[in-house]
Amino acid sequence: MSDRIDMVQNAAGRMVPTMVNGKPQIPYLGVGKYQPRGRKAAPLVRSNKDYPQNGDKRVVDIETALRKCGLRDGMVISNHHHLRDGDRVALMALAAAEKVGVKDLMWFPSASFPSQQGAIELMEKGVIHHIEGSMNGPLGDYCTQGKMRGMGVLRSHGGRWQAVQDGEVHIDIAVIAAPMADAFGNADGSHGKSACGSLGFALADSIYADAVIVVTDTLVPFPCIPWQIQGNNVDCVVEVESIGNPAKIVSGTTQITRAPDRLRIAEFVARFLRESGIMRNGFSFQAGAGGISLAFVDYLRRMMKEDGVKARFVRGGSTKYLVDLLQEGLTDYILDGQTIDLDGVKSIGNDPRHVATSPFTSYNYHGKGSFASLVDAVVLGATEVDVNFNANVVTHSDGRLMHGIGGWQNCLEAGCTILALPSFRNRIPVIVDEVTTLTGPGEMIDVVVTERGISINPNRPDLLDVVKGSSLSIRPIQDIKAEVEKICGGKPARPKLGDRPVAVVKWVDGTVLDTVFQTG
Amino acid sequence: MSDRIDMVQNAAGRMVPTMVNGKPQIPYLGVGKYQPRGRKAAPLVRSNKDYPQNGDKRVVDIETALRKCGLRDGMVISNHHHLRDGDRVALMALAAAEKVGVKDLMWFPSASFPSQQGAIELMEKGVIHHIEGSMNGPLGDYCTQGKMRGMGVLRSHGGRWQAVQDGEVHIDIAVIAAPMADAFGNADGSHGKSACGSLGFALADSIYADAVIVVTDTLVPFPCIPWQIQGNNVDCVVEVESIGNPAKIVSGTTQITRAPDRLRIAEFVARFLRESGIMRNGFSFQAGAGGISLAFVDYLRRMMKEDGVKARFVRGGSTKYLVDLLQEGLTDYILDGQTIDLDGVKSIGNDPRHVATSPFTSYNYHGKGSFASLVDAVVLGATEVDVNFNANVVTHSDGRLMHGIGGWQNCLEAGCTILALPSFRNRIPVIVDEVTTLTGPGEMIDVVVTERGISINPNRPDLLDVVKGSSLSIRPIQDIKAEVEKICGGKPARPKLGDRPVAVVKWVDGTVLDTVFQTG
Repeated sequence: MSDRIDMVQNAAGRMVPTMVNGKPQIPYLGVGKYQPRGRKAAPLVRSNKDYPQNGDKRVVDIETALRKCGLRDGMVISNHHHLRDGDRVALMALAAAEKVGVKDLMWFPSASFPSQQGAIELMEKGVIHHIEGSMNGPLGDYCTQGKMRGMGVLRSHGGRWQAVQDGEVHIDIAVIAAPMADAFGNADGSHGKSACGSLGFALADSIYADAVIVVTDTLVPFPCIPWQIQGNNVDCVVEVESIGNPAKIVSGTTQITRAPDRLRIAEFVARFLRESGIMRNGFSFQAGAGGISLAFVDYLRRMMKEDGVKARFVRGGSTKYLVDLLQEGLTDYILDGQTIDLDGVKSIGNDPRHVATSPFTSYNYHGKGSFASLVDAVVLGATEVDVNFNANVVTHSDGRLMHGIGGWQNCLEAGCTILALPSFRNRIPVIVDEVTTLTGPGEMIDVVVTERGISINPNRPDLLDVVKGSSLSIRPIQDIKAEVEKICGGKPARPKLGDRPVAVVKWVDGTVLDTVFQTG
Repeated sequence: MSDRIDMVQNAAGRMVPTMVNGKPQIPYLGVGKYQPRGRKAAPLVRSNKDYPQNGDKRVVDIETALRKCGLRDGMVISNHHHLRDGDRVALMALAAAEKVGVKDLMWFPSASFPSQQGAIELMEKGVIHHIEGSMNGPLGDYCTQGKMRGMGVLRSHGGRWQAVQDGEVHIDIAVIAAPMADAFGNADGSHGKSACGSLGFALADSIYADAVIVVTDTLVPFPCIPWQIQGNNVDCVVEVESIGNPAKIVSGTTQITRAPDRLRIAEFVARFLRESGIMRNGFSFQAGAGGISLAFVDYLRRMMKEDGVKARFVRGGSTKYLVDLLQEGLTDYILDGQTIDLDGVKSIGNDPRHVATSPFTSYNYHGKGSFASLVDAVVLGATEVDVNFNANVVTHSDGRLMHGIGGWQNCLEAGCTILALPSFRNRIPVIVDEVTTLTGPGEMIDVVVTERGISINPNRPDLLDVVKGSSLSIRPIQDIKAEVEKICGGKPARPKLGDRPVAVVKWVDGTVLDTVFQTG
């Protein structure tokens, strides 16, 4: 990374670099302002004559597969994160790359996890040049401390598809962990000893990468049914003893929060959906897998039953709580991007109404629409939200990069976007004057629900109207902020940030929304 | 079409034009000899901001949709043929194009049918310039008589995918008849009053066309589950009263041949599979929906039961006979490209072991392999076969273009390719010195089964060995030919062909295999 990086102010007033990892950038222009041009990235034309006639693409190990796929210095290697903190394949692939002897790889996971901190050693050794992808925990710290040679690039799930599809990131070799696969490369996540549910995050990689390696610990005779990854896009199949640690791939049980304040937030959100009339026959919603979200689903389920309301679809991350809705007839379908717990995995593997989706169907902003904007209400978290409803999900208020964006930015397209948050954490207020890192423009965030009441974005007078006179505690966001600052003894300290950018936050259209600066 | 067309001899010894419809051609180089280069065709990058936020892409009629999609003179409009002779949508679309007032369209159906002979009038009027796609019946006649302004281009199902994928044919607007769809454009063929089963032939169109219009007579609330066509690729949705005539979309019942000679052929084929050892646990086969093929499946089923043999998968065109195998536990899966009868439609709509495929998975030669070469044995028909096992499926021995290629060429990749044919038809011998139109190179055809015995291609000594000493009547193809010529009173008359090419037959790799010349 050059020491001198030109910065420019974008439409959100944020300073962003004009070049990132040698590529020119477009600063954020505002919601719906950037007009993409041109054509999508185009994979190489192949010929069946160069693949085994009997369809058996197995090779002995990942190193052999990487060599066969022509691994060279400076290439881009990708992985998906459906095995979460239980994944073993990404580090296997990177270690195999080290054995091949290559340097300066760009690692492009759909997200990275604490168990993958071995990647730090590979960065120190020069095998990996830098990471583009959400960095959680130690990898986020490493990046924020300015130790990575390249800049981190944080993209939403939809933004990752957009970047690959639009040719901003060219994947040379995709290494896809597959809980079930056949020797031709058809692969799925719904069955197998390391079953993880949907494999949607790997779909762009399988379509657009020059070479695709499927790594499985459950090889089945052709055809692997169902398949979410098509063998027709796959070059090599590698069988290994274990692709992951099942205990860490999916949660055994997902836990509803027991904290009274958080239960209160969850109940407020459910009541808001009910009293605003969003909860009506044929409606839809999406909620994450955090403790508040799960509790919200549970409250909402009771209200749906009381009112005799049925949803047309709910969007996962799927958990036991969504599966219960499906099985109780409270929704027609689960559209699932990421399967969170064992009940979810069992359901997606057996119930045709529980459907695997991909970032293409659900989140890609550079398509002909996406499912995200068809969802009536979405319930999300945030690390900070400001008085203009701008929100942060990637850094803490000390400036440290700690979380990925996930589908969060994409979900803001929903009919009603609700942030459900405690008003302070560890005595640090969550409602601030200005977020440390802008991840979501305030104009797209409609409602902020805290344990102290509900704030509605003034740009949604329709929502303000509809809940007027209800029993809900609707308050200006400034009021809640002032109350919290009194409790916490003032505003949070401003983080001490350097002026060296270490990562950027992309908006859903590929423009640069904000910058993460070096700390500590 | 220019009057003067340069012809060149290809690797099969056939004279083929160097230019077709203004595009330079590569003459056939031999099986597996052509090396494609470069990258696939790339669809335009779109933005969600230009599509309805609520996902409702409905417009009032096809004419409006065509205008919205920017229909202009000389564009390429595509349709699929899953509704077969019952389709109403293709002519609706072409008539709407006429109302828009455009000229010189290239119509690019995945196949055309006799009920679509209205296209002839549109060619006479100048609305359609020419057709690229299989032409059955009256359209084939029109082409063979030299009346079409451009040249016909006959491609296999896989070749059509290859041509679109490789950018040889750029579809401007795809009009997709959908038995079930939602307003976002997700669409499927498995349910609805005009249900037809798989919609796989429309998949390339939906991915690669600049604009995509879904036309349905069964609109369901989002999400349409399952979907084979993704709404994220769709621009407009049009609701119409009826997309087709159900009586002609699928056969009510598929009929096994009752002709003793043909039953004998079917039995020979089944016995060949049994005695050659191809019929073994875990094997696979594909058979068409013709009378001989159906009878073959019925014989084979009995033998499988007798011998306690179970297939891993069978490939459709699915019919009652394949569905019976599935339901009786004689196969794990049906991989279905084209659903033929009501039992097939019901099964694909309800049984997760009956899986819709596409020409990409099954047939595309410019991929990383395809399912076709993983099938152990395929049973096909032909209009003619010559003593070198070269075969013809598109013209009759009088030179008239009468049939499309379908998946026939692609199926030749199977482990054992069997042509099952009567040795003569209407007293015209089917085994000839040289086929009128070369559709499949003899080196890929392993066995010819007639009612007079079985001929094995000398380039398959392994097959000759394995059935040596069996009760099967194995005979040199020349012997059978001589016997038939005696019965029919000599060789068939050579067709009187002009020297003006009216259509070309593409090989699976996009090279030109043969030429159809003007007759009559």
